Amino acid sequence: VNALDLKGQLVAFCASGGLDSCTVTHWLTQQGVRVITFTADLGQPDEPDLDAVAERMRQCGAEEAVIVPLRDEMANIGITAIQALARYDGGYWNTTGLGRYVTVLGLLPQIRERGINIVSHGATGRGNDQVRFQLGANFLAPGMLTYAPWRDELFLEKFPGREQMIEYCMKHKLPIAPPAESKYSTDANFLGLSHEAGELESITTPADFVVPEMGVRAADAPNDAEVVTIEFEKGRPVAINGEAFDTAPDVFVTANKIAGRNAVGINRHAVENRIVGTKSRGVYEAPGMELLGAAYEYLLQLILDRRARSFFDYCSNLLSQQYYDGLAYDVTSHAAGHAVADFASLATGKITVSLLKGSVQFVSAEDVPHSIYIEENASMEAAEEFNHADSEGYLGVVGVGVRAQSVRGQIPLAFLPHNA
Amino acid sequence: VNALDLKGQLVAFCASGGLDSCTVTHWLTQQGVRVITFTADLGQPDEPDLDAVAERMRQCGAEEAVIVPLRDEMANIGITAIQALARYDGGYWNTTGLGRYVTVLGLLPQIRERGINIVSHGATGRGNDQVRFQLGANFLAPGMLTYAPWRDELFLEKFPGREQMIEYCMKHKLPIAPPAESKYSTDANFLGLSHEAGELESITTPADFVVPEMGVRAADAPNDAEVVTIEFEKGRPVAINGEAFDTAPDVFVTANKIAGRNAVGINRHAVENRIVGTKSRGVYEAPGMELLGAAYEYLLQLILDRRARSFFDYCSNLLSQQYYDGLAYDVTSHAAGHAVADFASLATGKITVSLLKGSVQFVSAEDVPHSIYIEENASMEAAEEFNHADSEGYLGVVGVGVRAQSVRGQIPLAFLPHNA
Amino acid sequence: VNALDLKGQLVAFCASGGLDSCTVTHWLTQQGVRVITFTADLGQPDEPDLDAVAERMRQCGAEEAVIVPLRDEMANIGITAIQALARYDGGYWNTTGLGRYVTVLGLLPQIRERGINIVSHGATGRGNDQVRFQLGANFLAPGMLTYAPWRDELFLEKFPGREQMIEYCMKHKLPIAPPAESKYSTDANFLGLSHEAGELESITTPADFVVPEMGVRAADAPNDAEVVTIEFEKGRPVAINGEAFDTAPDVFVTANKIAGRNAVGINRHAVENRIVGTKSRGVYEAPGMELLGAAYEYLLQLILDRRARSFFDYCSNLLSQQYYDGLAYDVTSHAAGHAVADFASLATGKITVSLLKGSVQFVSAEDVPHSIYIEENASMEAAEEFNHADSEGYLGVVGVGVRAQSVRGQIPLAFLPHNA
Amino acid sequence: VNALDLKGQLVAFCASGGLDSCTVTHWLTQQGVRVITFTADLGQPDEPDLDAVAERMRQCGAEEAVIVPLRDEMANIGITAIQALARYDGGYWNTTGLGRYVTVLGLLPQIRERGINIVSHGATGRGNDQVRFQLGANFLAPGMLTYAPWRDELFLEKFPGREQMIEYCMKHKLPIAPPAESKYSTDANFLGLSHEAGELESITTPADFVVPEMGVRAADAPNDAEVVTIEFEKGRPVAINGEAFDTAPDVFVTANKIAGRNAVGINRHAVENRIVGTKSRGVYEAPGMELLGAAYEYLLQLILDRRARSFFDYCSNLLSQQYYDGLAYDVTSHAAGHAVADFASLATGKITVSLLKGSVQFVSAEDVPHSIYIEENASMEAAEEFNHADSEGYLGVVGVGVRAQSVRGQIPLAFLPHNA
Repeated sequence: VNALDLKGQLVAFCASGGLDSCTVTHWLTQQGVRVITFTADLGQPDEPDLDAVAERMRQCGAEEAVIVPLRDEMANIGITAIQALARYDGGYWNTTGLGRYVTVLGLLPQIRERGINIVSHGATGRGNDQVRFQLGANFLAPGMLTYAPWRDELFLEKFPGREQMIEYCMKHKLPIAPPAESKYSTDANFLGLSHEAGELESITTPADFVVPEMGVRAADAPNDAEVVTIEFEKGRPVAINGEAFDTAPDVFVTANKIAGRNAVGINRHAVENRIVGTKSRGVYEAPGMELLGAAYEYLLQLILDRRARSFFDYCSNLLSQQYYDGLAYDVTSHAAGHAVADFASLATGKITVSLLKGSVQFVSAEDVPHSIYIEENASMEAAEEFNHADSEGYLGVVGVGVRAQSVRGQIPLAFLPHNA
Repeated sequence: VNALDLKGQLVAFCASGGLDSCTVTHWLTQQGVRVITFTADLGQPDEPDLDAVAERMRQCGAEEAVIVPLRDEMANIGITAIQALARYDGGYWNTTGLGRYVTVLGLLPQIRERGINIVSHGATGRGNDQVRFQLGANFLAPGMLTYAPWRDELFLEKFPGREQMIEYCMKHKLPIAPPAESKYSTDANFLGLSHEAGELESITTPADFVVPEMGVRAADAPNDAEVVTIEFEKGRPVAINGEAFDTAPDVFVTANKIAGRNAVGINRHAVENRIVGTKSRGVYEAPGMELLGAAYEYLLQLILDRRARSFFDYCSNLLSQQYYDGLAYDVTSHAAGHAVADFASLATGKITVSLLKGSVQFVSAEDVPHSIYIEENASMEAAEEFNHADSEGYLGVVGVGVRAQSVRGQIPLAFLPHNA
Repeated sequence: VNALDLKGQLVAFCASGGLDSCTVTHWLTQQGVRVITFTADLGQPDEPDLDAVAERMRQCGAEEAVIVPLRDEMANIGITAIQALARYDGGYWNTTGLGRYVTVLGLLPQIRERGINIVSHGATGRGNDQVRFQLGANFLAPGMLTYAPWRDELFLEKFPGREQMIEYCMKHKLPIAPPAESKYSTDANFLGLSHEAGELESITTPADFVVPEMGVRAADAPNDAEVVTIEFEKGRPVAINGEAFDTAPDVFVTANKIAGRNAVGINRHAVENRIVGTKSRGVYEAPGMELLGAAYEYLLQLILDRRARSFFDYCSNLLSQQYYDGLAYDVTSHAAGHAVADFASLATGKITVSLLKGSVQFVSAEDVPHSIYIEENASMEAAEEFNHADSEGYLGVVGVGVRAQSVRGQIPLAFLPHNA
Repeated sequence: VNALDLKGQLVAFCASGGLDSCTVTHWLTQQGVRVITFTADLGQPDEPDLDAVAERMRQCGAEEAVIVPLRDEMANIGITAIQALARYDGGYWNTTGLGRYVTVLGLLPQIRERGINIVSHGATGRGNDQVRFQLGANFLAPGMLTYAPWRDELFLEKFPGREQMIEYCMKHKLPIAPPAESKYSTDANFLGLSHEAGELESITTPADFVVPEMGVRAADAPNDAEVVTIEFEKGRPVAINGEAFDTAPDVFVTANKIAGRNAVGINRHAVENRIVGTKSRGVYEAPGMELLGAAYEYLLQLILDRRARSFFDYCSNLLSQQYYDGLAYDVTSHAAGHAVADFASLATGKITVSLLKGSVQFVSAEDVPHSIYIEENASMEAAEEFNHADSEGYLGVVGVGVRAQSVRGQIPLAFLPHNA
């Protein structure tokens, strides 16, 4: 599909509002395409004024510029991800993937309502976001066509790089923001930021040139620890340091602030496996997610037994991959999500942690009704519940199978054989 | 089994050399049992003089007191654990479990050589170590009897607590070390320390009373980051900051020192699932393991693709549980170990990290021949290898199955349905 | 715990009604224990008259003999197991484990209602059922004591074997059924039978002496295939050969009959891993489960994509182990059960299979609304939905990662290297 | 890539020797492409005379027609697959995927030796085989170009279907075999046959029109069971019914004959998940694999404990998918293969099974040195090794965790809650 195929048709363009959005919107209208832009309000810190974005899009030729409020949904998916501890490769919070999910799930109904059958986005032809956009549309509107300018030869010829877009916008007097220089590109919503590309692509180069936007670098954080108490109710964070929150986004605002100033969840590095099989390097910020997620993990440690933990871990890995891959919509995600929700329903309690220059340490736990950490059971001292003589029987039973393997020659007696 | 059943027989007692060892050894000989003690030299920092231990054991009545040198083996199993990233519940390095494995595997042949058929240990009847000792013996010497004084009613009656042991030793003039007061108990080898029990059992109490022995607390570490380069060759750490090491233990000595002074791997907290199904709380030190393990994980990020990573993660979880459970000897551990060794064979390269008050951050990677992080592939810019038009085809193919699910009603269109 | 400790107390004995039940009930009353017996009505084919059982129990000294109707529950757990394809080691339907779950879940509330605090059962001290009884009671009534005569030294001394029990019953004129000779023992409910022990314990002996009770041996089944159509609605079998069923047990009655006469699910052999770590050999009958399960599996083949199938398989294995181990009550079983229920909600359609001498073959599928087997997509012929040129792009994308591994020396070129 | 781009260049065409091979080879030479054909000798039953194939290819214009003998390799990968029990979706043996692996691994070195840089195959643009060919080439020769006529618009325009190819061959007097009518297409090697496409694509149509080539349908098999003994040595089948075999292919010849005449492994049906995400329906024959695999599985039942079985199952699923997906070359396959080989090293023994109209039943096992099925342990009767009182202790220990969950409100007491 190229732009000429779309002549006279109505295209829904998912616009972030930057240079690309302006260029694509205007250029498409110049090719005779009718464009309506849609912008998700995810509380993106780098684009606080979305009305201005809408105005810009209209100046670039959009027939209509729709802003869809999605902050609550963004916060809720954030909590869902925390309940699943759905961190991706290298252990970072994949807020960009979550953002795409919310965007597609939020914009598609608006697009369908207007009878539009073509959706377009500004993601490039090499990354994850094109996959997330297109599969999302395939899931939610299987008959809808996806048009990606960055895979359109006509567009690529005209705009081989950034400079040509700037030139084009200048020439057409489009209202682009003053073109900031950056050594990398950033995706943002209020749960987190992802920095990648540009100078970050060199793995031999330290990433210390990345300037955090949601907090400070560890080196710049206070030298004294800050102690924080998070209260969870059935898996949801409901209060921080005793202050209760009415809305999910408010939890993150406070968590972001506290964590960010202590460098928690700031500038995490990962070399990750992209959907399409290549590796990429990213630097991530997600202070609130990191703080709440760490506290949640400590809470789960008190509640889940071995079997539960093992199944939870499976679901956690599965969901983190499903979210990353743009597959949060399917029955597999639902099924795993229901399982995780069962575990979350037990996750009530207060966890106190200590934050210091990027690290989160456990301090104490209180009021955890479903905790199976029971001091009397844990204690090495004699207690009624746990009979020392029982252990003799226990080991007698467990030993039978072990001795059978030994007697039957299954056990080589070599030292440290795994690593030979 | 109680001590009277053993009268006149030869018992191999695995002695650490402390109060318990003295008491048990002497008491057993008083019951007419012949005792030979065996002590593993694991470089335990809390007991540097093992000849003194042997001397004490002889004074307590041991017919012979054997020291078995096992530092190399300890270091090697440490490297094996790093190659498997075999961290247990809550992500800590289970150096106690590794230590038991090395101890049993090292002492058993010595015991068998002397024709002894009864092995004894000082682990209590509620913890993991009794399981690790006894199953280890079951694996390696299925006909050998295990005798645990802490599960012997005679012994328990005589020695309901620590005080009675001290009294007993005083009365019999046994050469116990001056009885140190401690709020918790500690297991040690040169890979790491585990603190548990005592006042640590209260989960509402912060663990800040634990005094680290292998480094400093984060609060006490320098405010400036220290940069370290680790060089791996086929999965083994061979040099740190350019200095090559002749032996495996030497690597750990240096890694422990550097990491410890930066609070890396010091006083990690975990509430973990014990083998027997209860929870326990521990505080852990393993600075060298933490530093080398973090660097190794960054190295693997460059090498393993998604499939490899997923299988590796499975093996990693499996082995961490097998090691914890005292099952490192069986065919399952061997099979998973061989798989991990295949991945380790690719792990060559130099990783530079930055240490700051307990955290380890990636800095850069060099000379990684099997890295599949290839800048040209990763780059968002046009490149020969990766054709933008190919993505169109890729998404066309992948979309077919997705659209089928949508058309066939598998996808509910509700918002954020996982968390309802 | 032995019988003397229970003197004067009220004990709930779970009685099957056979020789053991009579002996235990009478002997306990003779020791001064007050006994109320509880018998689950699971439609066990070997004990069709449960009122007679109750009468016998009263004659043996029970103060009360309660029959608890649990056929519906048994059928429902059967369907739950089919939805999870929860077959155990070697692929057989573990109807004994399911029966124990239903029994404990059904009897415990009756026992608690009467204020009884001690539950007793006739399972031996080496098998799975003692575990299932006791853990079940621990889950549902953590304060309840479990008393197992077969682990009571007093009882074992008195009754070292079957003969002593027969003698005892004769002497006390207890109404035992004429003692049938059997080469093995059998557990029964209307979902299936498990034969084990006795002559079955010799693995070198063919099990052809086992006489099936729910159908015929393959050799005795008709030489012509029988074609059957099963209709599922949201995961539940609702009709067979066009005949709809009002109740879940009725489905199994018909399915058992049809499958049994064709030797389907009759006398399956397995050497399985018992909970306690030993192996045991069993011969199993579960004709209806096998027929419905096979049809259900064919239905799922049409519905689940790769990701769903992989997660389903995980849940299936997990649940089959949880059910076997007597852990169906815990949060892990619930969470996995919810996931399976999500998949089941899509399982609507008619599956026709052909039965011949023990085997079940797929014939055809109809009216499967959520099937993603779409002929046009499957077809090798040209079709709109699937563009041949897209495959070029798809392989271009997928090949990038593969070539990277090759170029970076991850791929040894040796032939068949896995098996060296 | 289309044929014109290849003008003057040397192309290695992997030719099966049928209508497609003749057409492609001749048409390419007509476009000015120089063609050398390569044919794998996999003992394909449908093409017994490969010299004739080579002669035909030369007559169609091939400069050279190379036959590569790969029967031993085919048998060895068959044994490797049996050791991994690597059955795909629906439980069938994926002999086509194994065949492609052997073909690519066998032909590529021959192609490289001749300095050819373009490899071509006759697989269509919608199936699995194009992926297996191309990824195989990417793995083994990352710089080699893959050319697929069935994705070349020029070729597709000229030959939209089978008729046009027949016409073309007639016109050019190419030596095509008399064009057989078939309702489906078949892929063959001596391990098995895969039938798919054509009339098999309708899921509502019974597949009874498929005529088996490696045995008989169940309805046509003898009514009396045939008893067979398979002897394994370290995971390899070495004798059948006492007759030892010198070469791996000979094992399969005999196994195919015995199993085939009893309808074992004949015409298995599966609706499977293709690599590209669509479903397809196949009917499969692999009698020898099915017989040897069933016996091998019975052998493993005696040897693997729970932990081993669980890890083995993971590797088995992983490898079956890797083989299916054309990924047998990568480090993941190697690592999982090494794990499987560890288990296989214990698989020595004789398994006797009984074959009847398509089903395989266990009869008995002998001489299994590593069996952990030990009658004394399995027995429900009292035995020294297994102390009844130990069970009391065992359950006491295991119950502590269970009771903790109950007391802490983790267990809802509802009946059959999973299926609500």
